[in-house]
Amino acid sequence: MAQHNAFYAQSGGVTAVINASACGVIEACKRHPDRIGKVYAGHNGIIGALTEDLIDVSQESDETITALRHTPGGAFGSCRYKLKDIETHRTQYERLIEVFRAHDIRYFFYNGGGDSADTCLKVSQLSEKLGYPLTAIHVPKTVDNDLPITDNSPGFGSVAKYIATSTLEASLDIASMCATSTKVFVLEVMGRHAGWIAAAGALAGNGEGEPPHLVIFPEVAFDRARVMDRVEEAVQKYGYCVIVVSEGARYEDGTFLADSGNTDAFGHRQLGGVAPTLAGMVKQDLGYKYHWAVADYLQRAARHLASRTDVEQAYAVGEKAVELAIEGKNSMMPAIKRVSETPYEWRIEAAPLAEVANREKFMPAEYIREDGFGITDACRQYLLPLIQGEDYPPYENGLPKVARLKLAKVERKLEEFKL
Amino acid sequence: MAQHNAFYAQSGGVTAVINASACGVIEACKRHPDRIGKVYAGHNGIIGALTEDLIDVSQESDETITALRHTPGGAFGSCRYKLKDIETHRTQYERLIEVFRAHDIRYFFYNGGGDSADTCLKVSQLSEKLGYPLTAIHVPKTVDNDLPITDNSPGFGSVAKYIATSTLEASLDIASMCATSTKVFVLEVMGRHAGWIAAAGALAGNGEGEPPHLVIFPEVAFDRARVMDRVEEAVQKYGYCVIVVSEGARYEDGTFLADSGNTDAFGHRQLGGVAPTLAGMVKQDLGYKYHWAVADYLQRAARHLASRTDVEQAYAVGEKAVELAIEGKNSMMPAIKRVSETPYEWRIEAAPLAEVANREKFMPAEYIREDGFGITDACRQYLLPLIQGEDYPPYENGLPKVARLKLAKVERKLEEFKL
Repeated sequence: MAQHNAFYAQSGGVTAVINASACGVIEACKRHPDRIGKVYAGHNGIIGALTEDLIDVSQESDETITALRHTPGGAFGSCRYKLKDIETHRTQYERLIEVFRAHDIRYFFYNGGGDSADTCLKVSQLSEKLGYPLTAIHVPKTVDNDLPITDNSPGFGSVAKYIATSTLEASLDIASMCATSTKVFVLEVMGRHAGWIAAAGALAGNGEGEPPHLVIFPEVAFDRARVMDRVEEAVQKYGYCVIVVSEGARYEDGTFLADSGNTDAFGHRQLGGVAPTLAGMVKQDLGYKYHWAVADYLQRAARHLASRTDVEQAYAVGEKAVELAIEGKNSMMPAIKRVSETPYEWRIEAAPLAEVANREKFMPAEYIREDGFGITDACRQYLLPLIQGEDYPPYENGLPKVARLKLAKVERKLEEFKL
Repeated sequence: MAQHNAFYAQSGGVTAVINASACGVIEACKRHPDRIGKVYAGHNGIIGALTEDLIDVSQESDETITALRHTPGGAFGSCRYKLKDIETHRTQYERLIEVFRAHDIRYFFYNGGGDSADTCLKVSQLSEKLGYPLTAIHVPKTVDNDLPITDNSPGFGSVAKYIATSTLEASLDIASMCATSTKVFVLEVMGRHAGWIAAAGALAGNGEGEPPHLVIFPEVAFDRARVMDRVEEAVQKYGYCVIVVSEGARYEDGTFLADSGNTDAFGHRQLGGVAPTLAGMVKQDLGYKYHWAVADYLQRAARHLASRTDVEQAYAVGEKAVELAIEGKNSMMPAIKRVSETPYEWRIEAAPLAEVANREKFMPAEYIREDGFGITDACRQYLLPLIQGEDYPPYENGLPKVARLKLAKVERKLEEFKL
């Protein structure tokens, strides 16, 4: 078979392990020199393809590519940019073909979440609708764990481990301070629509009185009086109260507790600030001294505390994406299949991209405790395998050693293109 | 020599390694069975002594005591409670003597920061002023690194490592998002009066353009126009801007940013966060999309990322405290002495408590860069040894394994005492 080049890009919010997927894609491509020539990385996702802003990955040393496995963030730049459909925005698709043809790109790997899966799905239609021979594979990634079909999303396990650990550690802190000082600690975590990350906070404790005492999910309508009753109860019984709250916490009518009024490129509302809002309510209604933390980027960048399971899965989906492409399986996504619960075993299977794009996986109702403030045993059983194992980065001079890429640009062959 | 019991307690804000000091004290006491009988831990600091609320440490297994070394928080409970002087509050001191006599306590170890050093200093006067034979030693601890005489304070190195690492990781995140999304990231760190922790954030980068691009210290008057100019400059030059800001950031007139009556990034009344306040200014003045994080307790409880140097020093000051007590050196504090810079070497020396209590160590002016937004090489040289080495806790089922103490109470012998 002839040899052609591959395109790889990262899209949407990055994770602690998206570069492990990049590492998986790149190393797997190298194992098929008869089929795949160079890997060109899109600078800032699909925008790199549209603007012919390509990075020549072959200029990076093997050591640098291996180091991607323990480097957080998106090494090639990510983007929040959604393609419209082919009918509406034909020029963009024609431009993609022009760029792919100019650089002999026949393999397309797009590493992202739900919105990015939609972009990848549209690109996968280039062959059928516009006759350009391209195999497009979506490489799953999202800390939100809301991709369908796959048992879990790469990136989530590491956030889950970080949030569970941080909740445990901060709980030991407030437990020792509560006699004369802080009584309530609020930790705000990511998860705009689905409470998966908040649920992970619940892994910090399980026995009677073990924190967190309340988990506030986006899936459960926020009822101030009920929440305050539970906070009061925890303080009375245990001396303190630890709350893990999702940034997506909302009232019955759908209004977010903390709505900044800003929207991002996709028209999503920019959220943040639920923790201080909730802490303010505690002070106002109950008068307790509080502390609050907002982990924000820290949680999804915390490669120093990655889950080994997550790192392995992130690498494996990248590797599998290349195998699928080599087999000519256009418009697919490698998905994680849970083969066995105890011991936890998984494998990677192929899922049709059309069934993935634009569908969000919410927490099943049976994962949320009946009172709405915690998780069930079923949820715990689902989550625990995902945080297993540590995978420490190497350290240099006290800090994690990260991959430093050359990011050598591929020479442009085409005219400029305005987005 | 006769054998008597020891009292140990924790005071003030806890750290990731205060229990390592507890471990040092307890294990050292066990090595002197001829002099020291039991160790009684005060439940919630000095309050435990006043209310005769004592924990019998001898009931804990050796394994549990060893596990304290990797357990964050204050295992015996801490307190924010300051003794008045003997003249003003003689009954409290008489009560202490009553409790110490009832339980044959002749050694007093108090583990805390500046305020706690003052408490320990007052207790150390019991022998001289009230004739009760007690040797009181202060065991230093504070994430704020503001204790005088000691080269650095146990607890600080681990926070410094956590903040430097988190700044590095989050910077890689925003660097990959900035083309189409977030342009400014603000990380709020602890340090109400001294900018030591904020300075540690600067360790994340050093070369041209390497984040953080701005560090905002409590020591440098906040000038909104100057800060915004620098933010704009960083975004123009590097595509994004990372800011590490101290919770103690303040205006020329001393008003804290967080207490200045500003509304936060969401237009809500400020609830005590500098990061959202600053992010709101960025949005208002420059229009950039932002993210912000407030690490709060997460930073000082992050035992999972402790500095090995810090853990070793925390243990060593605990151990040395017992040696000083055995030598009859009342009213002292083990202090860390930097013996050599390259390679970094340190030893523990004894410092008179009277010279420690009620004095804060601020950042020397020569540690802050001339423009006020970064650290100097001298500061970097001072800080770097403190974050060296990792000291991972053991993990069980995906989470750090922490010491679970019995906390068996010592039988009360006295009447109740009202604080």
